[in-house]
Amino acid sequence: MTVDPETIAFANRLADASGAVIRPFFRQRIAVSHKPGLHAFDPVTEADKGAERAIRALIEKERPQDAILGEEFGAQDGSSGWRWVLDPLDGTRAFVTGRHEWGSLIALEKDGYPVLGLLDQPVLGERFIGADGAAWLLQNGTRSPLKTRACGALKDAILCATDPGAYFTQEQQVGFRRVASAARMTRYGGDCYLFAALALGFVDLVIEAGFQAWDIAALIPLVEGAGGVITSWTGGDCRDGKTILASGDKRLHQAAMALLSG
Amino acid sequence: MTVDPETIAFANRLADASGAVIRPFFRQRIAVSHKPGLHAFDPVTEADKGAERAIRALIEKERPQDAILGEEFGAQDGSSGWRWVLDPLDGTRAFVTGRHEWGSLIALEKDGYPVLGLLDQPVLGERFIGADGAAWLLQNGTRSPLKTRACGALKDAILCATDPGAYFTQEQQVGFRRVASAARMTRYGGDCYLFAALALGFVDLVIEAGFQAWDIAALIPLVEGAGGVITSWTGGDCRDGKTILASGDKRLHQAAMALLSG
Repeated sequence: MTVDPETIAFANRLADASGAVIRPFFRQRIAVSHKPGLHAFDPVTEADKGAERAIRALIEKERPQDAILGEEFGAQDGSSGWRWVLDPLDGTRAFVTGRHEWGSLIALEKDGYPVLGLLDQPVLGERFIGADGAAWLLQNGTRSPLKTRACGALKDAILCATDPGAYFTQEQQVGFRRVASAARMTRYGGDCYLFAALALGFVDLVIEAGFQAWDIAALIPLVEGAGGVITSWTGGDCRDGKTILASGDKRLHQAAMALLSG
Repeated sequence: MTVDPETIAFANRLADASGAVIRPFFRQRIAVSHKPGLHAFDPVTEADKGAERAIRALIEKERPQDAILGEEFGAQDGSSGWRWVLDPLDGTRAFVTGRHEWGSLIALEKDGYPVLGLLDQPVLGERFIGADGAAWLLQNGTRSPLKTRACGALKDAILCATDPGAYFTQEQQVGFRRVASAARMTRYGGDCYLFAALALGFVDLVIEAGFQAWDIAALIPLVEGAGGVITSWTGGDCRDGKTILASGDKRLHQAAMALLSG
């Protein structure tokens, strides 16, 4: 076992702290600021910053040897071989439109590889956790195992992607359309929450591109722990977030990969 | 006052009955059947049918003179001048993917015009109601007024649409892209829930096309009651659902209409 129960409990406390900061901001009229240097509209809320501050304070106090990489406040070195990778409010566009498909992403890497991933939705009271080849949902005090569903053929598959028109290159859009044309149904919007729906066994394929490291780290142990496959579009490591292909079934993953590359 | 408190209370009881049927099906592995004669994938669940049956049984028992139009079980004549228009599970694609942006739509028309509209999300415990020029949210036993927000210019507007690529004609997509290019941000997915987000004051524009009468009837009193404008793309009546342009601000509605028509 790579991740001991105390570490999992600590990750849960980080999510508790993050959720306590974020929850009161949901559906409040909050200031939406622009990040400098980005052309696309990218809302960064007080909730986002406050939650990352709360998480970092706990790590610095209780596990000061761990490194940290956070979306809002950058990188901090450590000496333990562990690194926390944080995006306390992934799906800010859903958040600012008063909708629910957003979450706090908390990952723990050991020697560079994510071994624990947590997606917390504090308004829904849902916490999706993956660690050491298992994944589970905590909700209303109940722990339920997460398991992707079997789906062997694209014609039966439900495909999700947040917004290919905005986040994919022209060439990537062509590849995506090939998969979408073969799939049973394609559905947009969702951000990190799509990977939770995959882990729950209600979505068969998630195709994304243009993620950052902190957007993807927590989702790798979650998808893998639920029995799914998550790689780049060419089947390699997706930790850089540049392209992501997640599937609940290995056969489907192969079929999608073939169409993405043309 | 067109709609008396007893009628509003009855509509709430219809939503209670619908929600009780639907709730246990959420995130259960349910049979997804195809509707005959449609090329697009259109899941119709047991939840959908069961909820409409429950609603119709209550109307037939307690208000037998009222007419009914329901998505699943069609039209039934009445003699009272009132007609209930029902889509107990709008957003079935969100529902079957384990996500939350769906709702039960219950409208009451008087002499052909919707005067009461209710959007119930029984898993979230949210009920959005519009009647007689007012709109409110019922949640956790609390009633809060719904009010769209002011937004005078497209460059500041958040635009939402469920899936223009699937539901709009080529020509409609061109018009939509003109609005999207001018808007601050565009966000996909959502179905009926987008109109709730508009009534809450977190979305400025919703543009849709290809709705049926039962998809739109409940949303008209909701948007209008919250202070918004909801018409066809050319500013006319949208009760047929063919094109829908909803805005929280009249100025924005005018600006979007001009771009949609080219």
